[in-house]
Amino acid sequence: MTRPVGILGAGLIGRAWAIVFARAGIDVHLHDAADEALERARDAIATSLDDLHQAGLIEDPERAMSRIRYDSDLASAMAGVGYVQECGPEDVETKRRIYSDLEAVVAKDTVLASSTSGIAASRFTDHLHHPGRCLVAHPVNPPYLIPLVEVVPAPATGQAAVASTMALMEQARQTPILVNKEVPGFVLNRLQGALLNEALRLFADGVCSAEDLDKTVKHGLGLRWSFMGPFETIDLNAPDGVVDYGNRYGPLYRDVDRERGDDDPWQTTTLAALDQQRRQQLPAQRLGERQAWRDRRLMALIAHQQSLTND
Amino acid sequence: MTRPVGILGAGLIGRAWAIVFARAGIDVHLHDAADEALERARDAIATSLDDLHQAGLIEDPERAMSRIRYDSDLASAMAGVGYVQECGPEDVETKRRIYSDLEAVVAKDTVLASSTSGIAASRFTDHLHHPGRCLVAHPVNPPYLIPLVEVVPAPATGQAAVASTMALMEQARQTPILVNKEVPGFVLNRLQGALLNEALRLFADGVCSAEDLDKTVKHGLGLRWSFMGPFETIDLNAPDGVVDYGNRYGPLYRDVDRERGDDDPWQTTTLAALDQQRRQQLPAQRLGERQAWRDRRLMALIAHQQSLTND
Repeated sequence: MTRPVGILGAGLIGRAWAIVFARAGIDVHLHDAADEALERARDAIATSLDDLHQAGLIEDPERAMSRIRYDSDLASAMAGVGYVQECGPEDVETKRRIYSDLEAVVAKDTVLASSTSGIAASRFTDHLHHPGRCLVAHPVNPPYLIPLVEVVPAPATGQAAVASTMALMEQARQTPILVNKEVPGFVLNRLQGALLNEALRLFADGVCSAEDLDKTVKHGLGLRWSFMGPFETIDLNAPDGVVDYGNRYGPLYRDVDRERGDDDPWQTTTLAALDQQRRQQLPAQRLGERQAWRDRRLMALIAHQQSLTND
Repeated sequence: MTRPVGILGAGLIGRAWAIVFARAGIDVHLHDAADEALERARDAIATSLDDLHQAGLIEDPERAMSRIRYDSDLASAMAGVGYVQECGPEDVETKRRIYSDLEAVVAKDTVLASSTSGIAASRFTDHLHHPGRCLVAHPVNPPYLIPLVEVVPAPATGQAAVASTMALMEQARQTPILVNKEVPGFVLNRLQGALLNEALRLFADGVCSAEDLDKTVKHGLGLRWSFMGPFETIDLNAPDGVVDYGNRYGPLYRDVDRERGDDDPWQTTTLAALDQQRRQQLPAQRLGERQAWRDRRLMALIAHQQSLTND
C-alpha cells in the first residue's frame, strides 16, 4: 500500500503530476493556497484525462479523477502523505519558506521532492532540521506524456530518500535517472543546451536556415534518438561498438569541439533573426494551435511505442 | 521523364541509394568494378526491399527491383544518366581519381554528387574541367528509412547543380537540406557531436551513468525531436516563442556553454569505461541482433509517421 502523494502547487506542473500519480493508482492530495487555482486545476485535469483517454493512453479517467483530493489547507493536505512533489515558484527564497512550512506539517520520513528545473536542492533545504529527505525530481513537461524524471540528490540527501523516490517514479510508470552531482541545468537541459548552442551558432554563421536545422533533427537524428539514446546509437553504428566508433569518428567530433567559437549563441540579434524565420513558418497567432498539434503528435507517438513489444 | 541515376559503388550506402531511387520510380544504373560486389548487392537489395514490404513501407518490391540495372563497366553504366551518386571510399586521393574517371564518361550536364560524410567536395573536384556540377549529397544510413540528405555545394558549385539535386531528392521522397558552407562535419554530425561531446563529459565526470544518459534522450528529449526540430520545440515552449524562451533559458545555456571544460571528450579512458557499461547492457555477441531490432523499430516508427495526416 503506497501512502498518498502530496503535491504543492496546482499550476501546470502540479496538475500534470497529479495525473501521473492518479493514473498509476496512487492517491493524490493536491494543495494550493488559492481555492480558485484548485478549481481551475480540477477542470484542467478532467480535460487532460479525457484527451489521454481518447488517445488510448488511459483506460478509466473517472477512476483516476476520483483519486485526486483538492485541499487549500497545507496541514490537512499533507497529513499522511509519504512523498511531496513541490511545484512552487522558481525562486530560492520562496522555496526556502515552502520547505520550512512543509517540514512543520509532514511526517518525519516523508520525502520532499522539488520539480525545479534549475535550482539545486541544497540551496533551499540546508536550513531544515531534516534536509536528508529532500532532493530534486525534475520532470519534463508534461510528465504524463514524457516519462523522464531527473532525480538529483543534494550532498546532504540520504540514500533512503533517493531509493524511495526512484521506486515511486518506477511505480508511477515514469523513467527516473540518477544525477549524481548538482550540476547547473542537471542532465537533460545540458544535453539540450549543447545541441541548441551548436544549432544557434550554425544559424548565426549562415551555414543553415532555421527550418533546415529543424529538419536535420526531425528527419535525421531525432528518429533513432526517440527509441535509443546517443550512446546506444553510436554503439550500433560501428562494427565493434563504441570504441570502434570513437576511433573512426572521435577525431572529427574532437575537431568540431576545439574549433567551435566562444561567441555567445544566445545573442539578441541571433534570436531576433531566428524569430523572424520562425514567424514566417508559423505566425504568432498560430502558436497555440501548433502546441495542440504537438500534444496530439506526442500522444500518438507514445501510443505507437506502447503498441510495440516492450523491449 | 527523369533520366536514370547512376550509382558508383555497390557497398552498404550505394545499395541503399539504389533502393531510394528505384522506390520512387527512377531507373538506377548501379556500378561497381567488382562483379561479386554487384551480385552481393542484388541479393542484399532484394532482402531489404522485402523487409520494407513487410513493414508496409513499399507496395511493389519486384517493380522497384526491376528498375535497378547492375553494370561493372563504368562507361556503359553511366551512359545516359543525369545524376551520379558517388559512394566510393572515404579517401581524398581515391575520390579525385573517381571524379576524373566519371568526368570522362558522363554527359556535360550530369550532376556528380558524393555521399561522403566528411570530405568537402572542393577537395576532390577542383582538378576537374567542370567542377561546377559537383557537390556533396550526404545521406543518413540507411537513407530509405532516414530521409535527411545534406546537400553541400563547394564554392565552385553552380546554382543549377544545387537546384537539380534538391529537386531530385524531393522527387525521391528524401528531405534535402542546404548547407551553405563546407564546414567540418557538415550540419548533422556537428549537432550530433555537440550532444555526444556533452554526454561524454557528463559520463566522464561521474554525473550520470551511460544508461541514464541514453534514457534522458530516448525517454525525454528524443520524443519531441522525432517530429519537431530543436528550434520549433523551444518556440512552442514559451508563451511568446523563441525570443521569450531565450530570455527565460538563454542565461542557463550560456552558463553551461561557458563553464564547459576544454578536456577532450573522446579520451581512450572515457571510451573504455563507456564500452564496459555498454557491454554490460548488451554483450558484444548481441550487437547484430540489436541492430536488427533497431531497424525494425525504425521501420515501425516511419510507418507510424506515415499513418498520420501529413502535417
